[in-house]
Amino acid sequence: MEITDLSRLCIHTITTKPWSIEEAAQAYADAGIRGITVWRNALEGRDPLVVRGLLHDKGLSVVSLCRGGFFPAVSPEGRQEAIDDNKRAIDEASALGAPLVVLVCGAVPGQSLEESRRQIKAGIEAVLPHAENCNVKLGIEPLHPMYADDRSAINTLAQANDLAEAISSRWLGVVIDVYHLWWDPALEEEIKRCGHNKNILAFHVCDWKTPTTDLLLDRGLMGEGCIDIPKIRGWVEQAGFSGFHEVEIFSNTYWQSDQHEFLNKIKQAYLRFT
Amino acid sequence: MEITDLSRLCIHTITTKPWSIEEAAQAYADAGIRGITVWRNALEGRDPLVVRGLLHDKGLSVVSLCRGGFFPAVSPEGRQEAIDDNKRAIDEASALGAPLVVLVCGAVPGQSLEESRRQIKAGIEAVLPHAENCNVKLGIEPLHPMYADDRSAINTLAQANDLAEAISSRWLGVVIDVYHLWWDPALEEEIKRCGHNKNILAFHVCDWKTPTTDLLLDRGLMGEGCIDIPKIRGWVEQAGFSGFHEVEIFSNTYWQSDQHEFLNKIKQAYLRFT
Repeated sequence: MEITDLSRLCIHTITTKPWSIEEAAQAYADAGIRGITVWRNALEGRDPLVVRGLLHDKGLSVVSLCRGGFFPAVSPEGRQEAIDDNKRAIDEASALGAPLVVLVCGAVPGQSLEESRRQIKAGIEAVLPHAENCNVKLGIEPLHPMYADDRSAINTLAQANDLAEAISSRWLGVVIDVYHLWWDPALEEEIKRCGHNKNILAFHVCDWKTPTTDLLLDRGLMGEGCIDIPKIRGWVEQAGFSGFHEVEIFSNTYWQSDQHEFLNKIKQAYLRFT
Repeated sequence: MEITDLSRLCIHTITTKPWSIEEAAQAYADAGIRGITVWRNALEGRDPLVVRGLLHDKGLSVVSLCRGGFFPAVSPEGRQEAIDDNKRAIDEASALGAPLVVLVCGAVPGQSLEESRRQIKAGIEAVLPHAENCNVKLGIEPLHPMYADDRSAINTLAQANDLAEAISSRWLGVVIDVYHLWWDPALEEEIKRCGHNKNILAFHVCDWKTPTTDLLLDRGLMGEGCIDIPKIRGWVEQAGFSGFHEVEIFSNTYWQSDQHEFLNKIKQAYLRFT
């Protein structure tokens, strides 16, 4: 189904990183945007309850908090610290009124991916009871294989689905980001699978540019790259997802540009290429 | 099995890119190296038969020619040009005495990966009779998913195996490069699968550094990164492969360094971390 309005557009605060959350909330609201995903750095030095009030006053729905995860660590102390930090992220989400914490699962360079995956599973299991108590869901976001060294040992939707099904909690699901998953020949089938299990908790968009000059900070605006976003969105919606379309762009280029102009470009690109 | 000597070490000419093939051949031979994979740029302006004689005189086995492929194109003329160029690569390999042409299969930004994969299959089928006539094999090298935009629509060993099995020719197999495949949870199983079919034609090594600062030109020397190369080499050899271990490193850093010192580092890293 074609997109004809902004009612399902959500923007991640990191997308307009130069703005404080107060500036972002005002600008998003002025631009007619209805959803916001808050990154934890945007909350620094602020009471999340106050931010909740601000976002509510601006008519913004809080879609999720980014991000928890990073469970693997070489030492047991390191893994416990990660668990504690994830519980704090869940507390922040709860205070903010965010129904979801997105998990970038983590990896340790030189530690086997198998061991990191075991630690990720143990970490999620350790924090799930707290998530349930706080009425906050956890979303496993598989990351592109180019991040398997130090960001995530979960690199395909099949792995995320396996993990979510193995733990099997209605407080746990998956997050689908086209940037990480567009290349995967099993993507359509795996989207059907997690849709069948009601496990799709969020949908993130941006684009893959050619050339990409930085592994992390050179994401493109929708339409600037090679990802067939409408096709993937179609699969996600056919699988039963009816939530926000979240624009998550890390881009040195755009961060250095005028953020109001960038926001306008996001709106246009959302309507044309998502 | 531990590596105790250099008898199976092969180096790609691109690894020591600042050297001409004459300089590389002399340096590799002086360093006790026995295998060389020749990149086509190293042959520019030279008669491959003369280069063949040179490499033979230096005691170097020609392991493969890099590279053919890049079959997808938007126009039929573009696809025919690719087929013609692959036939020339096969001719060069034959003249050089290389038993294998490595295929980087290709992709076109914005064209669906499914369509690119169909064009890759058609391209390989179009050149296989010429390969057979020339007694040269073709090796499908799956490339890391971060190259799915413009270098290869074949991004996992499973896909390469599927393609090789679908075409089913003893002139076609796969090339396993740890840099492209290390992250894949199905890797061990897929290596067994292509070993069972006698389809492993080559094995490439280098390392994945953290951080990686360039998508193409920041590969690491073995031991500098997070890839468990001995584990993957063990799987490949248990699957029946007994050929050369080929060092293929694209690195602006190393290319700017003294190439004789770099060659010495490669030998040490090969003995310790491969």
